[in-house]
Amino acid sequence: MVIGAGPAGENVVDRAVRGGLSAAIVESELAGGECSYWACIPSKALLRPVELHAAAERVPGLSVGRIDAAAVLARRDEAVSNYDDGGQAKWIASVPATLVRGKARLDGPKRVAVGDRVLVARHAVVLGTGTGALIPDVPGLAEAKPWTNREATGVKSVPRRLVVLGGGVVACEMGQALHALGATETTLLVRGGSLLPRNEPFAGEAVEKALRESGIDVRLRADVTRVERPVEGGPVTVHLGDGSTVEADEILVATGRTPNTTGIGLPSVGLPEGKYVEVDDSLRAKDVPEGWLYVVGDANGRNLLTHMGKYQARVCGDVIVARARGDKEDDGPWSSLRAGADGRGAPQVVFTDPQVAAAGLTAAQARERGHTIRVVEYELPSVSGAYLRADGPGKASAVVDEDRRVLLGVTFVGSEVAELLHAGTVAVTAEVPLERLWHAVPSYPTVSEVWLRLLEAYGL
Amino acid sequence: MVIGAGPAGENVVDRAVRGGLSAAIVESELAGGECSYWACIPSKALLRPVELHAAAERVPGLSVGRIDAAAVLARRDEAVSNYDDGGQAKWIASVPATLVRGKARLDGPKRVAVGDRVLVARHAVVLGTGTGALIPDVPGLAEAKPWTNREATGVKSVPRRLVVLGGGVVACEMGQALHALGATETTLLVRGGSLLPRNEPFAGEAVEKALRESGIDVRLRADVTRVERPVEGGPVTVHLGDGSTVEADEILVATGRTPNTTGIGLPSVGLPEGKYVEVDDSLRAKDVPEGWLYVVGDANGRNLLTHMGKYQARVCGDVIVARARGDKEDDGPWSSLRAGADGRGAPQVVFTDPQVAAAGLTAAQARERGHTIRVVEYELPSVSGAYLRADGPGKASAVVDEDRRVLLGVTFVGSEVAELLHAGTVAVTAEVPLERLWHAVPSYPTVSEVWLRLLEAYGL
Repeated sequence: MVIGAGPAGENVVDRAVRGGLSAAIVESELAGGECSYWACIPSKALLRPVELHAAAERVPGLSVGRIDAAAVLARRDEAVSNYDDGGQAKWIASVPATLVRGKARLDGPKRVAVGDRVLVARHAVVLGTGTGALIPDVPGLAEAKPWTNREATGVKSVPRRLVVLGGGVVACEMGQALHALGATETTLLVRGGSLLPRNEPFAGEAVEKALRESGIDVRLRADVTRVERPVEGGPVTVHLGDGSTVEADEILVATGRTPNTTGIGLPSVGLPEGKYVEVDDSLRAKDVPEGWLYVVGDANGRNLLTHMGKYQARVCGDVIVARARGDKEDDGPWSSLRAGADGRGAPQVVFTDPQVAAAGLTAAQARERGHTIRVVEYELPSVSGAYLRADGPGKASAVVDEDRRVLLGVTFVGSEVAELLHAGTVAVTAEVPLERLWHAVPSYPTVSEVWLRLLEAYGL
Repeated sequence: MVIGAGPAGENVVDRAVRGGLSAAIVESELAGGECSYWACIPSKALLRPVELHAAAERVPGLSVGRIDAAAVLARRDEAVSNYDDGGQAKWIASVPATLVRGKARLDGPKRVAVGDRVLVARHAVVLGTGTGALIPDVPGLAEAKPWTNREATGVKSVPRRLVVLGGGVVACEMGQALHALGATETTLLVRGGSLLPRNEPFAGEAVEKALRESGIDVRLRADVTRVERPVEGGPVTVHLGDGSTVEADEILVATGRTPNTTGIGLPSVGLPEGKYVEVDDSLRAKDVPEGWLYVVGDANGRNLLTHMGKYQARVCGDVIVARARGDKEDDGPWSSLRAGADGRGAPQVVFTDPQVAAAGLTAAQARERGHTIRVVEYELPSVSGAYLRADGPGKASAVVDEDRRVLLGVTFVGSEVAELLHAGTVAVTAEVPLERLWHAVPSYPTVSEVWLRLLEAYGL
């Protein structure tokens, strides 16, 4: 029994059924989840034309007119299947698994109530309920009916004046997309001193520079004290600690996430509500006896990223099958029954222009964990491939574990660096020794040649 | 003493000088070599706007006009520094190393004659003389003064009618680029039954389909019997075995390469002229006693690719330094003094649209070498990231060594797949076990997610 038909929940079902079990999955909204309708998919559909427009403007010989926002929004609608989950429901049926529509709540061990029905799981219950947007406790903010990632990615009419609270991925991505699509007056109010604070500092700096150069007003260390929207649908005024105000047509809140673990019956199995549910590397809830409850994806708080949720789901599905069969649980470091990659620093791409693509640990995180490290860096415009693509500015860095001579982390910032990342994810996750990486020759003239430059910079 | 200041020769000098030796490098044309002025660099400068134009046309919301060929040619001129090697000469001086201008020839062991001077190497002589275009022995062809990669990449005025002999990388890349830049009537005459025969068959098929759809006339199994160009600068007529003819304004020959090993004094050290010089994994010429002669890059025939030439050059430079110092020569499989990656199948990107990016062995090559393999494939349009980028058709395949559970080869064909390759190069070259690759989670929604799909298709 899986609660929540997002990408994580769906992958559990897929693996469990492949392993010979039967599965049901309960969803109260759209099968496919947050990612498919209100996050990854629509945001990237909005960002791609913006990025391509910038790329075409950089290379001599092409002339691109203005972006046709209506066409972009229409493509977004296509990308989210017009918010119709028929295709997903069909996929679930094809697994085959049972899709139960409704709001599920735990009702004691292995029991899931949906409306009047109580379903009892034979082997396991898996929570994949995800997270929702966190609305910070600022006077007047909730009353102002702010946009979250849902309204921003689902935009029908782009506001001329937009104010964004936040400086993380959603704030940067949606601030840039909406600005390019018509929000000519866009302001980012960032509480901290930098954008994208979980990445290497140069990442946030590069994105900040790009946002500013495009005309977005980025205000760091902004102390939002109060929000006013006297007339519903009318302009919104944000008051800052320094006495200044920002007026806009819409306000987007992108200040973090909160787990969807309230109202799903967690107290019936002895767990608190409204918190991330802690799990072990087999995705089993730590504080539930007899090990029948698993949590995958955002709701366990390990890595709030679709691909890591799906990774956990594959592990979780396989674990449930192995336990149902009474198979030996392999606990070696590379076992497929262990979500070991969760701890190494998940790969992530921020689809702004410039993009930020990083895997593993930042230098600061590596030092915090006590590693002896050396950091090497290289400017992307010095790579022939980046020049030939007519890329904008960019930089790559690698964090080397000096004791073991493996990479602990890599970061790429620049035009369309997304696909450069997987080589880093492989090198970091699989702990490929530098001596072997030295023989993995990047093809010339790709941008990936920066891999050679990083190793040369290290002294190989 | 290095003969030939192409990318390979320059890298030998760089490594040797870093290691404490002094170096001179002789060049009779432009320092920087074929790649910088007449191959990789200008061809990619011509192809990038074509590729970007196609990408922009595929994504709704952008409108791109026609490609401005003059602007593209101007950017090509910038990319090749207007065929001025001042920047390269400066770089060589900064190493520091001595650039000797002139035609070099070996004059017995360790002796290099340049004009009237004879230079004697203390430690080693390195040949990096590269290859030139091979003009096949077709009656009338040489007399017709055909274009090679040099004239094609250096094009000043794009002919309206172009005929290309060949179906390899240069033929496909330059055929596509020149067609898009104004050669509306372009014909590819291919002797074999497919394009890009060294790649997986689906690669050549995809490129063939794209070329045909763009209006290029691709003729496979074309038997060119005779070429006529009665008036210099006038039209050229190609006669085929079936009695048909193709008339064009220019003819481009792209049927292979021939080593630049004639007229450089090889007989003075007992080696034949006009052949690739065989070397061992330390890049030492096999048939020269006392081991003072090395050959890097195209001239040794191992892998006719800039990046592999540079790789050999790094190994060669380090080997010369190690031997000069009397250091122990490490011969472990991952030693930096061994060009071991040469044998595993070099990575290569064909910068057509669709691109072809491959590393390691094809399925056919792996079977020939006696490996027990399984091939897995996945269509790129089924990957969310490819849909969101609005990519065209594409496919990925992986060749798995069933005995060792490592990858022997990967191939990606599709829109801008170049940067997907390095993950494959790392996995293949460093022999990363599938069990570890399974934990290297591709970031969602990148095109690299195809890595997950390939492993799932394998059964992980």
